[in-house]
Amino acid sequence: MIVSRSKELEQRLERTEQQLRLLQKISRCMVREMSLDQALDGVVTLVVDFMECDSCLLYLLDNNELVLRATNTPHPAAVGTVKLALSEGLTGWVAREKRLLSISREAYHDPRFKFFSDLPEDTYEAFLSAPVISRRGVEGVINVQHRDPHPHTGMEMELLTTVGEQVGCLLMLSRMEGKPADGTRDLVLSSGPERVRSS
Amino acid sequence: MIVSRSKELEQRLERTEQQLRLLQKISRCMVREMSLDQALDGVVTLVVDFMECDSCLLYLLDNNELVLRATNTPHPAAVGTVKLALSEGLTGWVAREKRLLSISREAYHDPRFKFFSDLPEDTYEAFLSAPVISRRGVEGVINVQHRDPHPHTGMEMELLTTVGEQVGCLLMLSRMEGKPADGTRDLVLSSGPERVRSS
Repeated sequence: MIVSRSKELEQRLERTEQQLRLLQKISRCMVREMSLDQALDGVVTLVVDFMECDSCLLYLLDNNELVLRATNTPHPAAVGTVKLALSEGLTGWVAREKRLLSISREAYHDPRFKFFSDLPEDTYEAFLSAPVISRRGVEGVINVQHRDPHPHTGMEMELLTTVGEQVGCLLMLSRMEGKPADGTRDLVLSSGPERVRSS
Repeated sequence: MIVSRSKELEQRLERTEQQLRLLQKISRCMVREMSLDQALDGVVTLVVDFMECDSCLLYLLDNNELVLRATNTPHPAAVGTVKLALSEGLTGWVAREKRLLSISREAYHDPRFKFFSDLPEDTYEAFLSAPVISRRGVEGVINVQHRDPHPHTGMEMELLTTVGEQVGCLLMLSRMEGKPADGTRDLVLSSGPERVRSS
């Protein structure tokens, strides 16, 4: 029993460390010069690695529509073309309600579900979705889907909530790109902090 | 031996979970309407709780000077008045070099050290300092000090690095405050995501 307790603790520690590394990696995206699309692709990749999900779709609001902006799935043509009204689907519901939504099985039976017919995600069982939010309000939605039923852990729900906030932040930062700095600094230094240890 | 392994794992798990909660709480600051000073005070409080340090000082660059903007220590008069040139002290070095600095004992013997004489931190042994950075470069410095010698763990160094990035982000966001939104949204929703679970 003690051995299995150790094993369980090891697994929980590993998951928690993974989650921490994920947030640290997203934080690095905040301070590096990179395009919004690069950053969003990076976030999707990190979420897929952590969640071991079959699909991760990231939509951003544009002219009152949710436009697919990043995905792990091999339908690149869908990026920028798949669009949802705020009144449509589970995704629209999450944006309207600004709430995390977790459905562990038969997501497609939810009355709010919208069928695309051309996206394989239509048949997936489990659906976890968080609003992308900034201080300006809802900015989009990030969806995680599993082909098979998948009860979402509290940790997964917490993580996607935080990812939604961090993506909102990345979006705000990208809006500042190209705007002049406010002249308080004269330092031009290479990117990325380094470590120095003396003792 | 197995029991002590469990105990060690429990402690590591607890520390990792604390660190995760800290980053999640800072992330919440990103999406809530709050002043920069409130957010910086919040960050300092969270860092002190996690690091169990005797002092946490947060400086931001203003007109090429590092100005003390938040602290856990009871010298509120110092906030906004204690200033350092970039050429001064360990703090100035961290800003110039854009590097994390860890000194586990006798920080006051470091040739880069600057004595304030009126700050008790002058006599503290251990010094951990990370640059506050954004995409625009160095924005400030956050210092953590222990009265007694304290070897900094990799986890503590990683955390302060990430906190420095997140504070840089908070600073960028505060610069956008008051600027009009870009008109892509017509949603005005109450703040804070909620959770809904169906299964």
